[in-house]
Amino acid sequence: MGKRIGNQTLAMTTPVPVAGFAAVAGKKEGQGPLTFDYVAPDATFGEKTWEKAESKMQRDALDRAMAKAGVSEKELELLCAGDLINQCIASAFGTRGREVSFLGLYGACSTMAEGLGLAACMIDGGFASCTAAVTSSHFCSAERQYRFPLEYGGQRTPTAQWTVTGAGAAVLKANFPHAPCITHVTFGQIVDFGIRDANNMGAAMAPAAHQTLTALFADTGTEPADYDLILTGDLAAVGKNILIDLFASDGVTLAGRYDDCGCMIFDGAAQDTHAGGSGCGCGASVLCCHVLNGMRQGQWKRVIFAGTGALMSPVSSQQGESIPSVCHAVVLEYTG
Amino acid sequence: MGKRIGNQTLAMTTPVPVAGFAAVAGKKEGQGPLTFDYVAPDATFGEKTWEKAESKMQRDALDRAMAKAGVSEKELELLCAGDLINQCIASAFGTRGREVSFLGLYGACSTMAEGLGLAACMIDGGFASCTAAVTSSHFCSAERQYRFPLEYGGQRTPTAQWTVTGAGAAVLKANFPHAPCITHVTFGQIVDFGIRDANNMGAAMAPAAHQTLTALFADTGTEPADYDLILTGDLAAVGKNILIDLFASDGVTLAGRYDDCGCMIFDGAAQDTHAGGSGCGCGASVLCCHVLNGMRQGQWKRVIFAGTGALMSPVSSQQGESIPSVCHAVVLEYTG
Repeated sequence: MGKRIGNQTLAMTTPVPVAGFAAVAGKKEGQGPLTFDYVAPDATFGEKTWEKAESKMQRDALDRAMAKAGVSEKELELLCAGDLINQCIASAFGTRGREVSFLGLYGACSTMAEGLGLAACMIDGGFASCTAAVTSSHFCSAERQYRFPLEYGGQRTPTAQWTVTGAGAAVLKANFPHAPCITHVTFGQIVDFGIRDANNMGAAMAPAAHQTLTALFADTGTEPADYDLILTGDLAAVGKNILIDLFASDGVTLAGRYDDCGCMIFDGAAQDTHAGGSGCGCGASVLCCHVLNGMRQGQWKRVIFAGTGALMSPVSSQQGESIPSVCHAVVLEYTG
Repeated sequence: MGKRIGNQTLAMTTPVPVAGFAAVAGKKEGQGPLTFDYVAPDATFGEKTWEKAESKMQRDALDRAMAKAGVSEKELELLCAGDLINQCIASAFGTRGREVSFLGLYGACSTMAEGLGLAACMIDGGFASCTAAVTSSHFCSAERQYRFPLEYGGQRTPTAQWTVTGAGAAVLKANFPHAPCITHVTFGQIVDFGIRDANNMGAAMAPAAHQTLTALFADTGTEPADYDLILTGDLAAVGKNILIDLFASDGVTLAGRYDDCGCMIFDGAAQDTHAGGSGCGCGASVLCCHVLNGMRQGQWKRVIFAGTGALMSPVSSQQGESIPSVCHAVVLEYTG
C-alpha cells in the first residue's frame, strides 16, 4: 500500500528492491568511459534491420536482468516497456514471445524512469510481486526517423545530442534482499518553455527536470545534500548547465552531486557527440550498469534517477510547435 | 491495497468509481447510431492541423469529464494518456498547460483500457485519490500516417477499419457515490498469430482478446453469462466474428452479451466504413458516453471493456513483420 506525499510524490510503504539489472550497448557506447553487461561488435546486433536490432537489445537486456535476479519467465508478472520508434515497435516486438502482462509506455527519454516508477507502484500497491521495466534506443533507427537518412551525412549543430544505441532493464521483486530499493517516485508534469529547436532538446527538457526535482525535494522534505547522486537522463551538456542555473536562481546548489547520463556515456570531445547522449537507452543503460552497480559497491547510498523526455515529433516541429517536456524521478536507496 | 488473483488479473480491494466521463466525436461519428457529449461540425475542431484538432478533442473530453465529476484541475493527481500519432503528440500537446502528473502510454487501440486500468490501480494501491484516463484518434491524422495521403483517395479493402475521429475521458475518484466502479483489471500479454495484413487488424487482434478474456474468466472464476455486456474495442466485423469462433472452439458462447465498439459506432452499410471503426478514440468514445451512461441508466450492471491494440507500425509492415497485438480488459460494475 503506497501513499501520496505532498503535491506529486508517491512514497513506497515498503521500499521496492531492484533485484536484477542489466545494460547492453552498441560499439560506440562501448568505446566510451562506461562499462556495460554486453557491447555489440556492430550496430546490427546480428539482425537485418535497425528496428529488429533494437528489439533484440531489449530482449537481451531483460533476459540478463532476469537471470541476475534469478527470476524465471513464469515469475515475471508485469513488464513496463517503451522506446522511441514510431508506435514503440522495439518494445512490442522485443516482448513478443514472453507470456507477461505488457504495459506499453511512451515518455521519450523519460521512459525508463516512468516504467521503473510504475513497476514499483504495482508492487507496493499489492498488484504484483515481480515486475520489470525495459527501454531502448538505437542511433540508426532514431536518426532516420527524427532527423535525416544516415546516408545523407547531415551536419549536426553544437547543441544536438547523439542517440545512444543501448538498452537497460531492471527487474523489481518484493522482499529481495541486499538490493538497491526504490523508495519514492515523482511522476512529472508537462512543462513547455517555448523552445522550438529540435536540435536543442536539453534546453527544452531542463525546465521539466527543474519542476519535478523541486517537487520531489519539497514533497519529501529533502534537499540536494541529502542525496549522494542526482542523475538526470539525459539533458546532456547544454541542458545540464541550464538545470544548474535554474536551481542556482532558486538559491539551491547541485554542486558535487549532480551529473547527467548524456554527459557520462560518451567522451564528448573524443567521440564527436556534441552536447552528449540522448535516447531512452541512454539513461537506462547508464542506470542499469554503472549506477546500480556503483550503489551495490557502496559508491552511492541514495540516488535520484530523473528521466527527462522531449515529447515532440517531426510533425509537431514541422508545424512550428515548441517542445513539451516531462521528467519522471525515482529515488533509489541501498543500505547493504 | 490491491491484489493479484490467478495468472493475470488485478482485483481492486475497493472498487474504483468512474466519477465522470465524456466523449467528443467528429461529424461522421455523430451521424452514426450513437450519441456523444459533443459532435464537431467538421474535422478541424477549429484548429489549423489534424494533430492540433486531436489534442483539442482530448482537452475537451477531459474538461467535460472533470466538470461532470465536479473535479477541479488541482484535484486531479495523475493522468494516463495516449494516442496513435507518432510520439503520442496528441496526448502531450493535449495535456500541456495542466498541472497534473502525466503518464504517457502507447497501447494502440487498447490505450483506453490500459489507462483506465492503471488509473484504477493507482487509486486502489494508495497512490492517488483522483486520476483520469484519456485517449483519442483522428481519421485524418491516422490515415496519412498509417496509410495514404487523404488526397490520394486510396481504395480500401473490405477488411479495413475506419479510424474514428473522437476522444473519450474518464475521471476516477475514490469514495465517489452512485458511479460505475472498476472492480478488476486484466493487463494483456502480447499475442501474434502471424497476420501480416495491416488492413486486417481485426484478425490480428482477435487472438489477443481471446487470451485476455480467457484469463479474466479463469482468474475471476466467472463466465460470459456473469456479465451483461462484453465489449471489445475495436475488432470490428472481421475480428468480432473471429473472436466468437475462437470462444466457440473452446465451447464458450458469447451470444447475446457480446458486442464490439468498432461495430457499434458506425452504421457500416450506410456509412461505407467497411469492417467498422478503429482507433484509440473508438473504444474510448463508445465507452465514455453510450456504455457508461447505459450503466448508470440500469441497462447493464456488469460490463467488461476489453481494449484491443495492433502494435505494428508502417515500418514493421514494410519490413515484412506480422502484427503483435495486445488486449487489456477492465471490469465495470454499477449497483446504483
